[in-house]
Amino acid sequence: MSHFNRQFILAEYPKGEFTDSTFELRESEIPEPNEGEFLVRNLFLSLDPANRLWTAEVDSYVERVEIGDVMRGFTVGRVVSSKHKDFKGGDLVQGLDGWQDYAISDGTNYNDKGIIDTWNIENIARAGLPISSALSVLGHTGLPAYHGLLALGEMKPGQTVLISGAAGACGTIAGQLAKIARCRAVGIAGGPEKCSRLIKKFGYDAAIDYKHEDLTESIARTCPKGIDIFFDNVGGESLDAALANINRGARVIVCGAISQYTQFGQEAAPGPSNYLALLTQRARMEGFIILDHYPSSRAKMESEMIGWLKEGKIKFTDEIVEGLEKAPKVINKLYHGENKGKLTIQVAETSEIDQAIHAALA
Amino acid sequence: MSHFNRQFILAEYPKGEFTDSTFELRESEIPEPNEGEFLVRNLFLSLDPANRLWTAEVDSYVERVEIGDVMRGFTVGRVVSSKHKDFKGGDLVQGLDGWQDYAISDGTNYNDKGIIDTWNIENIARAGLPISSALSVLGHTGLPAYHGLLALGEMKPGQTVLISGAAGACGTIAGQLAKIARCRAVGIAGGPEKCSRLIKKFGYDAAIDYKHEDLTESIARTCPKGIDIFFDNVGGESLDAALANINRGARVIVCGAISQYTQFGQEAAPGPSNYLALLTQRARMEGFIILDHYPSSRAKMESEMIGWLKEGKIKFTDEIVEGLEKAPKVINKLYHGENKGKLTIQVAETSEIDQAIHAALA
Repeated sequence: MSHFNRQFILAEYPKGEFTDSTFELRESEIPEPNEGEFLVRNLFLSLDPANRLWTAEVDSYVERVEIGDVMRGFTVGRVVSSKHKDFKGGDLVQGLDGWQDYAISDGTNYNDKGIIDTWNIENIARAGLPISSALSVLGHTGLPAYHGLLALGEMKPGQTVLISGAAGACGTIAGQLAKIARCRAVGIAGGPEKCSRLIKKFGYDAAIDYKHEDLTESIARTCPKGIDIFFDNVGGESLDAALANINRGARVIVCGAISQYTQFGQEAAPGPSNYLALLTQRARMEGFIILDHYPSSRAKMESEMIGWLKEGKIKFTDEIVEGLEKAPKVINKLYHGENKGKLTIQVAETSEIDQAIHAALA
Repeated sequence: MSHFNRQFILAEYPKGEFTDSTFELRESEIPEPNEGEFLVRNLFLSLDPANRLWTAEVDSYVERVEIGDVMRGFTVGRVVSSKHKDFKGGDLVQGLDGWQDYAISDGTNYNDKGIIDTWNIENIARAGLPISSALSVLGHTGLPAYHGLLALGEMKPGQTVLISGAAGACGTIAGQLAKIARCRAVGIAGGPEKCSRLIKKFGYDAAIDYKHEDLTESIARTCPKGIDIFFDNVGGESLDAALANINRGARVIVCGAISQYTQFGQEAAPGPSNYLALLTQRARMEGFIILDHYPSSRAKMESEMIGWLKEGKIKFTDEIVEGLEKAPKVINKLYHGENKGKLTIQVAETSEIDQAIHAALA
């Protein structure tokens, strides 16, 4: 356990990817909570493509992180001590407690007044699943696949679902949900290894290697009946090629656009020139932010997903990197497609995490 | 009344606009209907932006017109003689009888097996409205405004509706429907004269002259609360500028994209680079083709629109040009924004039309 608090402070807005000068490491005393506050020990920190949007000079779907602030990040943690009536020492909590060992919270991040509510991490632990999955398959990377495909995608058996970023944290879950819905699942990923994993491990019917194949041609070949649902995590060329192949009444779900994020707030990236397919094919393109749906739907989504996980119908891979200090370098893997699963930093040592779970379930 | 049949035949696929060599004028005998067919005398022919999509070398939302075929067009006509059980001489009908004086039909265009069903033109005449309005405010230019804004737009009082191509056949109706729904209506049009007409004649709250104003700046000024619904007839820069200003949960209704049509099927036009606003603002962009909704909804839409027309809540302007021979030249007005209302060719003489109505209502 750390005896001081390490914090990554945003030192400048990156132009492209994160660099050595984006963050500054600051070390300080572990803070004390005041009345109405509590102290959280971060156990896991999630690294996400959208982190780059939060550090663009313009606001995106949430307010940007200001220079001098601790870098924002989704976390799972343990309450160390509390002067807040709704939290007590030993509680496992989920929040936006950022790139640091310890955080002081007034609960704003933990209830429905804030961006994200507290979450029943104990529930996940009791199901025999790792609590870090609250930041992946049972959190903001797995649940968008659920909401996007089940609530917005309106999948019907026999339809074709194309998924970009298919080997990513969200895409691997999306493909399996498409198969559970008895659809044809086709994934777009980079490189033969990822493509092979899509089919062998995650049950995709076909995979397209965008690094070595012509997208339009491959989509036509692997989606011979056209695309009914395109679940897009990537944007750019994938989106354009998919639009060229959508069926009447298709749904294009904009879950993310990782190909665009490192340019966000700078010059305009080219838009999807085939967007007129929305008109000619009477189709719909829709974006969403999963956090909006947590208050009303997270419990239902989680419970169904836990069922599928236990039945082995959904598999997931988390790439857990130990050590908070590695976050600034490791995060760029996401923009190169180098991560092999949901990228998560293990902030605390394994023994400390095990103890925290044991104490919480006792 | 003509004693022979003039037909405009598609001679080549235009590259940009329609030119002198796009169509060939052919004159022939007036044909005789066979068993199961009827002869139609065209009274009015509609000229529409989408006509250009039908003559692209690739299929769009309907099959392209083939070289050597009579140019396709929406028409209102009178049945001259019939060997078809469902039609009799004197019936007023609506169809896709094309750029010609007379057409033989087997009814395919006139019932729900075809692209468009026959329509109760007598109903319009009885309401004291010109039967050519079945091709404008009560047809495929006015009803898209109704369906787009009322069914897809989900307008709520106090919301802001931005409309591009606002001075056009569809846009003028859209603005008035936004006002009926007690929304703020802002229109984009080309030139001070059109902008002034939007406000004075059609009740828009504000107008933006895209030829003389910076779109992004003007949208910010005229839509101070942001855009809740963008009803787009134009595409291109208008769409991009609108996307930059949409509110959370906004609806972008893709009704048309006249700025793109003359390039259709050629090089790809640039797409809306701000499409990621759909993600950050949890918004939806949706296309539709009004013909899809005729079988289920035209009667309801028409009846409500006739009510508003009679109450004076909706005004419309048709620009009626006499003489079928003028169609090939006049149609290009649409792509320059030079038409002053819904562009319609009066194929028959006024006296013949009056007689036809009189006979049908008798």
